[in-house]
Amino acid sequence: MMDVCLLGTGGMLPLPYRALTSLMVRYNGSHILIDCGEGTQNQIRMLGWSFKPIDVICITHFHADHISGLPGLLLTMGNAERKEPLTIIGPKGLQKVVNSLRIIAPELPFDIAFIEIDEETRDIEICGLTIRAFRVNHKVTCYGYSLLLSRAGKFDVDRAKALSLPVQYWNVLQRGDSVEYGGKLYTSDMVMGERRKGLKLTYCTDTRPTKQIIDEAFRADLFICEGMYGEQDKLPKAKENKHMMMREAAEIARDAEVAEAWMTHYSPATARPSEYTDMVQAICPCMIMAKDRMETVLTFAEN
Amino acid sequence: MMDVCLLGTGGMLPLPYRALTSLMVRYNGSHILIDCGEGTQNQIRMLGWSFKPIDVICITHFHADHISGLPGLLLTMGNAERKEPLTIIGPKGLQKVVNSLRIIAPELPFDIAFIEIDEETRDIEICGLTIRAFRVNHKVTCYGYSLLLSRAGKFDVDRAKALSLPVQYWNVLQRGDSVEYGGKLYTSDMVMGERRKGLKLTYCTDTRPTKQIIDEAFRADLFICEGMYGEQDKLPKAKENKHMMMREAAEIARDAEVAEAWMTHYSPATARPSEYTDMVQAICPCMIMAKDRMETVLTFAEN
Repeated sequence: MMDVCLLGTGGMLPLPYRALTSLMVRYNGSHILIDCGEGTQNQIRMLGWSFKPIDVICITHFHADHISGLPGLLLTMGNAERKEPLTIIGPKGLQKVVNSLRIIAPELPFDIAFIEIDEETRDIEICGLTIRAFRVNHKVTCYGYSLLLSRAGKFDVDRAKALSLPVQYWNVLQRGDSVEYGGKLYTSDMVMGERRKGLKLTYCTDTRPTKQIIDEAFRADLFICEGMYGEQDKLPKAKENKHMMMREAAEIARDAEVAEAWMTHYSPATARPSEYTDMVQAICPCMIMAKDRMETVLTFAEN
Repeated sequence: MMDVCLLGTGGMLPLPYRALTSLMVRYNGSHILIDCGEGTQNQIRMLGWSFKPIDVICITHFHADHISGLPGLLLTMGNAERKEPLTIIGPKGLQKVVNSLRIIAPELPFDIAFIEIDEETRDIEICGLTIRAFRVNHKVTCYGYSLLLSRAGKFDVDRAKALSLPVQYWNVLQRGDSVEYGGKLYTSDMVMGERRKGLKLTYCTDTRPTKQIIDEAFRADLFICEGMYGEQDKLPKAKENKHMMMREAAEIARDAEVAEAWMTHYSPATARPSEYTDMVQAICPCMIMAKDRMETVLTFAEN
């Protein structure tokens, strides 16, 4: 189960009525934040979630609207008496950028571990889930992120009984480990069914459409994607600034066969994104024009 | 005439209901901003003032709550198509700090001129007024700022007539210049009365009380002063963090004989600053517990 909140839905600059795009996910006691523009800490506060359990911050790229709120957030986490190390994930150059911004936040009561990504894709196991970074196509190096939660198969009581292994060892096998008993090796696959569908949340901003985004978001439970411009005459601007048209985002969501999609990162010139709902849903009926602090809970399917 | 708006009244960190302390003044087509924490650009937008005419930004000190919003504001000024140079005034080290923050705002369509202050006081003539910086007593080097608008004396028609100088030269003398006519030198003081009282706005945060603040704010038309803590048991904390008690701010306002005073820079723990109104006004009746985006217009006295 993952609690998900899209803290803001704006692009380029913060507006009084629309915060900059960033995502917060709560899983198993950890908070994971993707992007942190100016004002993100206020959105977290309005949501009522805590600053202290933020264990990971993923940065998509180093444009101000995605990272300008970081020094303030780090200080606020310090004021919340966080002591445990924080991991920040981002493109190559991350440590230099963060340390440069930290000229106004030099003293923190916690350490920061940096994971700099230079590859096309990178899987990072952290906080009990996999954070998968994948390169997208923006004016500067930029990554999308998928949060992947795997799910073991079902424990098969009948098969376990048939092994004549004492009950106290069953949970070892259930955890995925092996047991030696009576001179015989018992492995997890002897009692566990096939892996079941896990959870996938894919977050993607800022970028032009790419084939890989479709692959990365394929059958995601939730796909959050930038749609900077709605009007078709903005296509040259979208291409120039390497952003997506709402139409393009909807096409990706449709082609990736996602369960649900949220549009975000609206241009400041777009006063009412909901005006594009019909156009977008004609392409991908499961796509919603997201609003600030839109929340959902992703849960495993039955069985 | 100066339009004045206290954009926010918070200290330490931004809150959804209280922006960080910063001041904007509009005079003669120029905008002057003092401090720029996270969220300041949103406050300017809510106020409805423009970004483009910001000609001067004064930074009191380099703590994040006073400067973290600067890179975002610079980008927004760039998006507003500002082309004219911007002057940033602040303590020594200013250029290094701003350039370090500009790692996420490297390209701007305007130049930045830096004025770094190292003296106890410094008068800067800019935008038709005097910005006077004076050192205060905080944990890091910090300056208060007074905006001073001088006012010439009254033009004395009778004395001008008595000079038998042709009327077309009168306005030269009125501007403060001299005229040579008929082999004789006419100076401004021959027709102008004594300088009249100008306008003074004094802004002071973050600091412990000092005698100099009283001198600098003396008979100010408006004195804006930090008052981080209200409850008397916070005095040790105020001393440790080099902030002011509300009581101390009120005493300064009283001793400086200011016309009007606004309290600001409240601790995030102070939910309702207005609860301290009676205590503060018992010391200084003209002191108001300011709220975000409180506005006034300072005008010359009659005559």
